[in-house]
Amino acid sequence: MRNDKRTDGGMDKQLTKPYKKDSEYSYTLGAFPTYEMIKAKPDIVRKVLVHSSFTDQENLRKLCNQYQIPLEINDKVINRISDKENCYVAGFFDKYSCELRDDRPHIVLVNPSNMGNLGTILRTCVGFGIYDIAIILPGADIFNPKTVRASMGALFRLNHHLYTSFSEYQQSYPKHELFTFMLNGEKTLTLKDCPKTELYSLIFGNEATGLDDSYKEIGTSIFIPQSADVDSLNLTIAVGIGAYVFTNQGMR
Amino acid sequence: MRNDKRTDGGMDKQLTKPYKKDSEYSYTLGAFPTYEMIKAKPDIVRKVLVHSSFTDQENLRKLCNQYQIPLEINDKVINRISDKENCYVAGFFDKYSCELRDDRPHIVLVNPSNMGNLGTILRTCVGFGIYDIAIILPGADIFNPKTVRASMGALFRLNHHLYTSFSEYQQSYPKHELFTFMLNGEKTLTLKDCPKTELYSLIFGNEATGLDDSYKEIGTSIFIPQSADVDSLNLTIAVGIGAYVFTNQGMR
Repeated sequence: MRNDKRTDGGMDKQLTKPYKKDSEYSYTLGAFPTYEMIKAKPDIVRKVLVHSSFTDQENLRKLCNQYQIPLEINDKVINRISDKENCYVAGFFDKYSCELRDDRPHIVLVNPSNMGNLGTILRTCVGFGIYDIAIILPGADIFNPKTVRASMGALFRLNHHLYTSFSEYQQSYPKHELFTFMLNGEKTLTLKDCPKTELYSLIFGNEATGLDDSYKEIGTSIFIPQSADVDSLNLTIAVGIGAYVFTNQGMR
Repeated sequence: MRNDKRTDGGMDKQLTKPYKKDSEYSYTLGAFPTYEMIKAKPDIVRKVLVHSSFTDQENLRKLCNQYQIPLEINDKVINRISDKENCYVAGFFDKYSCELRDDRPHIVLVNPSNMGNLGTILRTCVGFGIYDIAIILPGADIFNPKTVRASMGALFRLNHHLYTSFSEYQQSYPKHELFTFMLNGEKTLTLKDCPKTELYSLIFGNEATGLDDSYKEIGTSIFIPQSADVDSLNLTIAVGIGAYVFTNQGMR
């Protein structure tokens, strides 16, 4: 019964369906994350869609041509997938899997629940030069367009891997020194007294619940000094402080 | 033509209108920020609304009674103002004005544009013990329910003041040492070499544009070291790092 006429401008039928967690593809929203993706991981990009009112088409077309990525003007799909935000570019990509490197520091997120937070954390990690991120499931979908957007494309610069349990992660990287960030952490993180180590995992719990007390038995528990006038720091801020302090310790 | 029957459970007519920037009142959404507000600033609270399915009514009623704050069960208004979020408590309050203290450190936000970011920044400032916040207009509405919610009630713990220009702020607090956070800042912020000062203003620009180059002439410009793989750190993260490092420098 379906009309065979291509109403979506020639795009794969599949790409016009709303994003789902089990989709094989996802998409960037916005010019900046799309550029970031093409530059970092051109092989995964299936197609770039552009709104007819996007003003910088020429540069984007040049970049797409360089990697033989199809570029298509398609206001209809862009309007549909971009929610309320003003968005003029979307880049459809195949989801992919990575492995973390065993000789680099890691950030480990235990059950992160908010996609915006997760994206901001990815951006922050890349900002501080930590490019290997473990997520302990259940957790927010790292490929959801909201996560990708909040990461500003940083997702494509780093390695991420999902684990079904913390012990699965721990067994995979036995050489990493583990630091758990907890409100009842035993070690207060000050500028003058930051643990000195090169191969480490910084471990953070869920936004609402943090890490449960079983994590006190794992490695060194760290407390970021904070006033009693807040229940806790926001998770993204805690990761930002941890990443800044640990990556900064070698600097003079 | 209006039906005089009180369809909103006896609540002031005014409170049933949608929030506007020029409203004289605003409201907290959620139990935690409402508790925070009542404990920090009971005098501003006009009325607390509770959804009939809220499970902790007794404690909240006790606290309201203590400060003679009316508490009302009103599913209709709560459902209407709480957007998509699950929210069972709202606290209506009168907007108020404050002055910053001249003998305490300040955070200065120049044209912050996102209410969620602004709220997270307020929570972070209070977390690190900085209780005096200047906002240079135009800027996001500090009393918007979205800001209040993102602050988790930290708004009520601190002093804030709005300025029409940076020079108006600067003239009001001539003794503060000024630090501007800029991507082309001259001084790199490392753990080993943080400026030592007690009375300071940490100044941050807009999410998208940062501080313009005219701010390089003002005080000391600071660069938070970050990789070239991101365009910048998220504003909330930059404020978090700045507040952590400056408040932490006295710690042993």
